[in-house]
Amino acid sequence: MGALEEARFEGELENGVGLDEPEEELEAGSGSGSRPEATRAIEEAVRVLLQGLGEDPEREGLRKTPLRVAKAFREGTRGYRQKVKDIVQGALFPEAGLVNGTGHAGGAGGLVVVREINLFSYCESCLLPFSIQCHVGYVPSGQRVVGLSKLSRVADVFAKRLQNPQRLSDDICAALQDSINPAGVAIALQCWHILFPEVLRCNPNPKHLSKSDMQGWVQASVCSSSGVLEVKGNSFWNDFLALLKFRGINLEGCSKSCFPVQSWCPSRSLEVLLCNGHSTKSSNNGKVSSKPGPAHAAMVGAVTSILYSLGEDPMRKELVGTPYRYVQWLMNFRSSNLDFKMNGFNRGKLCLRKTGDVSQIHSVLNLPFCSQCEHHLLPFHGVVHIGYFDEEEGKVIERSIFQSMVHYHGCKLQVQERLTRQIAEAVHVVFHRGVMVVVEANHICMISRGIEKVGSSTATIAVMGQFSTDPAAKALFLQTISNSTASGG
Amino acid sequence: MGALEEARFEGELENGVGLDEPEEELEAGSGSGSRPEATRAIEEAVRVLLQGLGEDPEREGLRKTPLRVAKAFREGTRGYRQKVKDIVQGALFPEAGLVNGTGHAGGAGGLVVVREINLFSYCESCLLPFSIQCHVGYVPSGQRVVGLSKLSRVADVFAKRLQNPQRLSDDICAALQDSINPAGVAIALQCWHILFPEVLRCNPNPKHLSKSDMQGWVQASVCSSSGVLEVKGNSFWNDFLALLKFRGINLEGCSKSCFPVQSWCPSRSLEVLLCNGHSTKSSNNGKVSSKPGPAHAAMVGAVTSILYSLGEDPMRKELVGTPYRYVQWLMNFRSSNLDFKMNGFNRGKLCLRKTGDVSQIHSVLNLPFCSQCEHHLLPFHGVVHIGYFDEEEGKVIERSIFQSMVHYHGCKLQVQERLTRQIAEAVHVVFHRGVMVVVEANHICMISRGIEKVGSSTATIAVMGQFSTDPAAKALFLQTISNSTASGG
Repeated sequence: MGALEEARFEGELENGVGLDEPEEELEAGSGSGSRPEATRAIEEAVRVLLQGLGEDPEREGLRKTPLRVAKAFREGTRGYRQKVKDIVQGALFPEAGLVNGTGHAGGAGGLVVVREINLFSYCESCLLPFSIQCHVGYVPSGQRVVGLSKLSRVADVFAKRLQNPQRLSDDICAALQDSINPAGVAIALQCWHILFPEVLRCNPNPKHLSKSDMQGWVQASVCSSSGVLEVKGNSFWNDFLALLKFRGINLEGCSKSCFPVQSWCPSRSLEVLLCNGHSTKSSNNGKVSSKPGPAHAAMVGAVTSILYSLGEDPMRKELVGTPYRYVQWLMNFRSSNLDFKMNGFNRGKLCLRKTGDVSQIHSVLNLPFCSQCEHHLLPFHGVVHIGYFDEEEGKVIERSIFQSMVHYHGCKLQVQERLTRQIAEAVHVVFHRGVMVVVEANHICMISRGIEKVGSSTATIAVMGQFSTDPAAKALFLQTISNSTASGG
Repeated sequence: MGALEEARFEGELENGVGLDEPEEELEAGSGSGSRPEATRAIEEAVRVLLQGLGEDPEREGLRKTPLRVAKAFREGTRGYRQKVKDIVQGALFPEAGLVNGTGHAGGAGGLVVVREINLFSYCESCLLPFSIQCHVGYVPSGQRVVGLSKLSRVADVFAKRLQNPQRLSDDICAALQDSINPAGVAIALQCWHILFPEVLRCNPNPKHLSKSDMQGWVQASVCSSSGVLEVKGNSFWNDFLALLKFRGINLEGCSKSCFPVQSWCPSRSLEVLLCNGHSTKSSNNGKVSSKPGPAHAAMVGAVTSILYSLGEDPMRKELVGTPYRYVQWLMNFRSSNLDFKMNGFNRGKLCLRKTGDVSQIHSVLNLPFCSQCEHHLLPFHGVVHIGYFDEEEGKVIERSIFQSMVHYHGCKLQVQERLTRQIAEAVHVVFHRGVMVVVEANHICMISRGIEKVGSSTATIAVMGQFSTDPAAKALFLQTISNSTASGG
């Protein structure tokens, strides 16, 4: 019972707040003076990024963005400042078990598995958050078990750092093995990484905003194990996989060696794409993901200083290209491109063509988009549905034109409400009788900043012309979307 | 822009920690002296409850339970100490819109809906947590929108109080209307309340631990609205319902008047059951949910003092019976009943009967149970799967006997690992050749204490006899469970 007696009361924080983190680091004072050095340094760096994007950091909407981003980064990497021992040692409980050997009975070594723990982490290759379903198993020994919630707490300590899936899995496994000292530990992670807009454009694949919000994301499954669970294919490992299967999770064949983890991040695939000559330049309307100018260099420097402020070593080999890749991601949302696009749209690129369609309301559904929340510099993505009354019966705009327009309006620092309105206004320029736009999106900022409302989604509506006076038309268009979701989603 | 200028920077806490809550209230010092009065008062009350349950509050495993419960209660009711204005005012953003009227375009009044926000609240009738999917809609006005995450933050302020579904919905609606001053607000809540063990026994309904973890729970749907969304059946309200439908949420017909909210809590139904003469006494083995003795009275007093310490008025009419009902719930898990049950089981109540079954491994799957986590005094519930080799070929125990045994071992302060082992040991007394027990459970303590790992589930295994030496037997039994899950779940 020695170790239990030693259990430190201070480690027994149940609610995951304030852990090893001086509260002033998370609290917003009324002036920057009361905020810690690291937060202020990140704020300064974010201002450089905003300027590099051609934005005015003082405009309403962006004014507090540096602080929001700094706080989100600090909160999202709080794992660097947390100690596993403190979490676990206060929650080891004596649990007498059966005498006949390891791994045989509940309290005395029978396998314990917590499945489907939702986590978020930051990709060390590109600094974007990625989503995780974490499954933790261990075989207790020494007549003691650990409080179940601690398994997810420990996993979260390592998720709240800059990671790749395999290191995250290895870190959690090693930490639990060290701190609980069980007969063995097994970790399996299913990770989802948002696609980059360039990759989306190379491989457009319109989809409903599905119940599974990660549809279309890059997925990686990894695992780690130690002790009696180490030998893959042994009996305990098979039990672990079997218990996951009860929940529909099939990880057979998942092993350390089979997945090229270094390249799972879409920013890496993009580099491969570009190397292979699949340049995204042509469809990019002047957005070149290439030669750094002075502003670009300042942005890369700013991101390097963010890494440093988070307590990371920017020279760690996995992080060397990260500032460049993060800036490359941000440059998708540079404001300076906007005019060109709008002009392009307005200068009559619209291909009106004759069709046999005589229905009054035309529907263009499930146009995918990826935009960037201007409050948090984090992506929101989803689909746009457009309905309009045509002026001259039988004339429609091609879907690809709508898709380009959605892309143009999405690719800047945005808020969903404004995006919805701007698309409606742009369509209204052509179709005066009436336009209705519905945007459905998942906001990474809603799920990766401690709020972690996984699964929530936001829908916005804008109506113009006849749609604003005719409830029946509105209802008809909404029903059309609903039908398409039911059949295709 | 006046209101925006006034926006208080101090309200701009993004991560939901420390809000208006002096940090020392959440932090565990090394002695009780450093904890606030309210927390210490709740700890004291929990010790009274533990004693009333026949437990030794000083035994390992329970020693820190009073502190854990006190912190969970304080954290779970932190909404009493939060101010909506502080959350919202820092996050109102100017968003120019269309000129032609309310409710027509994204930034200028088009409907904005955040769907499927997961929340937890405490039932004011019985003090148990209940689960919520919250859908929030509003129609912006005055050329400003609110940060999307604030909608879930405001909803959470009211969820973190003692509530019933309708009041929660009304509170959120009124608070958003007051603080954002939009053209209208719509709130829809889907709420799930765990069943009481007595109700489960009156209406046993064995089920798989399903993907939807709330299967079999009491459900209530409620809604509230204001402003342009107020008139049910109007155009905006219909739009709100249509956007929910896109996610498979059908709330048509849901209205304020149709649901008897006061009686949604199963503790209320139980009172009705008991009044109607469906006494649970017979199946209860001496657990009488009735006449209070002196210990009972002390427990009711202790819960009353908890209500007071949370900042509530124990005399508020909805709370008057709550201490009694919470104690009634707890008394399901009184330790003093254990011996009688075990004796009953061991005294040969087993009905061995001849069958034609000649398979070596017998499986009894999906035995439902509800137990009480001794670390947090919160329920965990799920299913037990039992596999055994029979001694004399063709003899089996009836399912109902297994169900009683599971119930006996579940109905006390427990941990899942121990429950698994105890069931295995109990079966092993009869079937020496080999026993395997798998328990799958959802732990309310994992999802309602700020950790909020909704959807996670825990599986534990215990093996004895031949199962501990024969991996093929283990694998076969796990496959049997898997097949049954696939077909029936």
